[in-house]
Amino acid sequence: MHKVIFDTDPGVDDAMALLFLHHHPDIDLLGITTVFGNASIETTTRNALFLKREWKIAAPVSRGAGETFIPHRVSHEPPKFIHGDDGLGNIGVPEVIDLPLDPRPAHRFIVETVRANPGEVTLVAVGRMTNLANALKEDPKIVDLVKEVVIMGGAFDVNGNVTPAAEANIHGDPEAADVVFTAAWPVVVVGLDVTTKTVMTRQQLADIRDAAGSSRAKLLFDLSQFYIKFYESRVPDGMVVHDSCACAYVVAPHLFTTRSGSIRVVSGGIADGQTIQKPDHIGFGPSEWDNLPSQKICTGIDSEGVLKLIHDAIVAVRED
Amino acid sequence: MHKVIFDTDPGVDDAMALLFLHHHPDIDLLGITTVFGNASIETTTRNALFLKREWKIAAPVSRGAGETFIPHRVSHEPPKFIHGDDGLGNIGVPEVIDLPLDPRPAHRFIVETVRANPGEVTLVAVGRMTNLANALKEDPKIVDLVKEVVIMGGAFDVNGNVTPAAEANIHGDPEAADVVFTAAWPVVVVGLDVTTKTVMTRQQLADIRDAAGSSRAKLLFDLSQFYIKFYESRVPDGMVVHDSCACAYVVAPHLFTTRSGSIRVVSGGIADGQTIQKPDHIGFGPSEWDNLPSQKICTGIDSEGVLKLIHDAIVAVRED
Repeated sequence: MHKVIFDTDPGVDDAMALLFLHHHPDIDLLGITTVFGNASIETTTRNALFLKREWKIAAPVSRGAGETFIPHRVSHEPPKFIHGDDGLGNIGVPEVIDLPLDPRPAHRFIVETVRANPGEVTLVAVGRMTNLANALKEDPKIVDLVKEVVIMGGAFDVNGNVTPAAEANIHGDPEAADVVFTAAWPVVVVGLDVTTKTVMTRQQLADIRDAAGSSRAKLLFDLSQFYIKFYESRVPDGMVVHDSCACAYVVAPHLFTTRSGSIRVVSGGIADGQTIQKPDHIGFGPSEWDNLPSQKICTGIDSEGVLKLIHDAIVAVRED
Repeated sequence: MHKVIFDTDPGVDDAMALLFLHHHPDIDLLGITTVFGNASIETTTRNALFLKREWKIAAPVSRGAGETFIPHRVSHEPPKFIHGDDGLGNIGVPEVIDLPLDPRPAHRFIVETVRANPGEVTLVAVGRMTNLANALKEDPKIVDLVKEVVIMGGAFDVNGNVTPAAEANIHGDPEAADVVFTAAWPVVVVGLDVTTKTVMTRQQLADIRDAAGSSRAKLLFDLSQFYIKFYESRVPDGMVVHDSCACAYVVAPHLFTTRSGSIRVVSGGIADGQTIQKPDHIGFGPSEWDNLPSQKICTGIDSEGVLKLIHDAIVAVRED
């Protein structure tokens, strides 16, 4: 069993990833921590509570950061054209969900949960890295207590998506990401190099809905339609399931190939938010990548295998 | 016929590229302009004169920049461990070559030669972009008069070589490169994405020497040995012929695949000197790449074809 804290900004592909984690038999979901990004912190937190209620998720929801690690940084507008005004594809999420939040802010929830489960917790972070950076700031010693940090974010041997240089999750808080990547805990980065190759077609999503036969899968299908509409200009048919790729890595790392090396994030300038790895097997002159922990980035993916994994996990639980 | 000005910092692979241009029947070499980089401006200029004398090259040599486009920029030491103390593999180049230089500085030589041959000159630049940027500064209107600018430099979908982010020619003068890439003349960038795939083995180099049977090819063989030694830790056998790839593009563009889009160079920070293209076929949010000329970068190469082209051109001229 993998004890997981899911750090997320739901977000359409976040929702699929959450249902995957909730249904996968090898995942023990300890908590959901929210962060701003795909929508405001109010909206992503509300959405997490909504999905918790609709999908009967036991794990607590803890509200996280609503601003960048460096507070006065230039911020970016939420991409409403991708995830909808409500962050979940404009399906009409109620304004208020009457469920309690965990009383602790996300970064403290992370610290305390990691300390209560030393060596056992995998942090799966699919939004901005702000909560993780804040957790490291509050308690740097958790680096020795976390099992693994799996990130959806970044773009290494490919272009970004927000700018030619930067991917959205990292672009949204570059300094936080740099803190997370350069900390002495094991990080695996699942970035655009592999996620953009992993497109779930309309039919595959409909198959999940039909095979599951549950209101859960129907909700997933419905909230994904707006997001699929956005992807019409980018992929032939369907949607890129960015966040689910990171979750798939947790239970099926054999579906990925990785490359090891220290990672830095560009801060400021035209490449603001770009992720760059120094591969361990290549020699360079002295640089700002020296003497930092070697982390893994994903360079290859068995996309069909990942899509099948998502399908099988979601349809395995039929009751509502 | 391609009228070419060769902007170069010889440099071992520069020397091979120069002999290729000198021997290729479709190239009319109008001039050699020198720049600092692989060695100081004094050394690269002396080396250009040395190769002109040894190889009986008619084209004039014009001395170029010895400092970056922005004069007070942090400068980098020449890579003597790659090209030797003398920039030509420590073969013992005489300290002084008794040949006259063109009286004009390189950037003025470029401007005046372009103006004298409107629409006909291809600039092949395989060192830092300083001379080209200085030429543009002196006479911005040459952008409409140059046929094509072919650059060896940069790294787009791969790591750099000086740092994980940056390739040497661009890292040596990022602001100059940014000026050159964003000017409204047609640029083709032949970078590490393709040059590092193009390795001439020891045997292939020996074959050129033997097939040519000339003192020219023997000199090329001899001066390359130190450079090959450097590459022992990087390639199984032989040397990367970076600069010759750019020259090959001039006469045989069909050996390359390219991608179009505006190009910027990162200035300052950890990614200083990194080249980033915004591919025309991908959509992004607003960025510093918008409303700039679309340039070509090479993403694929027929390396065997390029190596054969180099072999055939050099051995075609046997007399000394």
